[in-house]
Amino acid sequence: MIEHTTNLRVRYKETDQMGVAYYSNYLVWFEVARTELLRGAGHAYSELETSQGLWLMVVEANCKYRMPAKYDDLLDIYCTVGNIGNTSMSFNYIVKRGSVILAEGMTSHVFTDKSARPKRVPSIIKEAFK
Amino acid sequence: MIEHTTNLRVRYKETDQMGVAYYSNYLVWFEVARTELLRGAGHAYSELETSQGLWLMVVEANCKYRMPAKYDDLLDIYCTVGNIGNTSMSFNYIVKRGSVILAEGMTSHVFTDKSARPKRVPSIIKEAFK
Amino acid sequence: MIEHTTNLRVRYKETDQMGVAYYSNYLVWFEVARTELLRGAGHAYSELETSQGLWLMVVEANCKYRMPAKYDDLLDIYCTVGNIGNTSMSFNYIVKRGSVILAEGMTSHVFTDKSARPKRVPSIIKEAFK
Amino acid sequence: MIEHTTNLRVRYKETDQMGVAYYSNYLVWFEVARTELLRGAGHAYSELETSQGLWLMVVEANCKYRMPAKYDDLLDIYCTVGNIGNTSMSFNYIVKRGSVILAEGMTSHVFTDKSARPKRVPSIIKEAFK
Repeated sequence: MIEHTTNLRVRYKETDQMGVAYYSNYLVWFEVARTELLRGAGHAYSELETSQGLWLMVVEANCKYRMPAKYDDLLDIYCTVGNIGNTSMSFNYIVKRGSVILAEGMTSHVFTDKSARPKRVPSIIKEAFK
Repeated sequence: MIEHTTNLRVRYKETDQMGVAYYSNYLVWFEVARTELLRGAGHAYSELETSQGLWLMVVEANCKYRMPAKYDDLLDIYCTVGNIGNTSMSFNYIVKRGSVILAEGMTSHVFTDKSARPKRVPSIIKEAFK
Repeated sequence: MIEHTTNLRVRYKETDQMGVAYYSNYLVWFEVARTELLRGAGHAYSELETSQGLWLMVVEANCKYRMPAKYDDLLDIYCTVGNIGNTSMSFNYIVKRGSVILAEGMTSHVFTDKSARPKRVPSIIKEAFK
Repeated sequence: MIEHTTNLRVRYKETDQMGVAYYSNYLVWFEVARTELLRGAGHAYSELETSQGLWLMVVEANCKYRMPAKYDDLLDIYCTVGNIGNTSMSFNYIVKRGSVILAEGMTSHVFTDKSARPKRVPSIIKEAFK
């Protein structure tokens, strides 16, 4: 199984007055993690967009928050590929601080062209993650 | 049923290079909408925090993206209360541009004190939304 | 003098663990205010981009922070046009809560085409703001 | 002179529909850079807040944008201390992609307690950066 763990540190910007990381930031961290997963598999997402005219449009996102992340925490965002369909692809995520699971989530996407028409998952992606 | 529709306009900041609103912003709009739902029911969330020492901590968030929101779009964020438990409360959201549904989502929360200990849903909230 | 005041409410997302609005958000509010100033003068910025292929690229931004904005504050963002040059245009901003000035700022821009080549300030803008 | 260079990668979230990093993000990157500068000098900003009850409140921010940063760019944020006064401290920043300067900026701050009363710059900071 292809998997990738991205490390990042919680920014002051990402905290809120509750003193924890605001909940929408987890979706941003998921984006960073799946970008690095793709890069780790040899495919920069930026190249998919510019060279192949393919966009990974999100159709669903989910996050379960177990424990709050705090300012300056060093987090591990663990990312794996879920399902790959004809035009769709999903990712799973676990956000950890050391051995503690802070959150778990998933995002589901379809490949499209710039006009938002669904396109087949490119073979280089299928190869990389089969 | 208590419901509230919040209007907001997509900010340039909220777009990404795909030319659409980035997916984490929907969770921010959900926050704006549930704040206004609470205010519409007579309870500013800011007062819950400062006067009652109660925090509405998120435990799950979900969003299904149907159609992209674009820069300068005027959106309606329709918000209703889902379930109210002993310490928990959930909200449902529909994001519309005119009559077109762009996204649907939900968030689930628990009331806690500042130390993140679960607290009963305050009676003023139960009264307001029963 | 063309001027415009935009009202907005500080979002929970915009707070940080200091309990105040994080400093980069003021630049976002400036964007909202200059968009509304342009709209008030009859020109949606979105149309400048799509119909005229003109982009208002920022070259400088400045903000002086006097007093913190807090969660749920209702703010007035007062915006005026500063200088208009051949290809450049600047805006001034005052952020107020009631009669209290919270911050003052300015942004300076050049009009460009999509390839970032400077373009003359369009006559419709010159007319609107002379 | 104490200096520190922080590396970061432009997130998709940080782009806008112009295809470049949105201008307020530079202030967030400045925050990341000054946090790492302080850490490099032996002082986690998080400890200043929690152990010493000191807050580094911003009073001014400025950024000059030379060239746009783009998605997935690897940036160097070079940070130095400007002036240190009785209660104030400023930082200078240069944002580079390889050898190309993309932006230059500064932020000016005062040390305060949690009630926003100015406090003397702590001696550990004066020592570290003299």
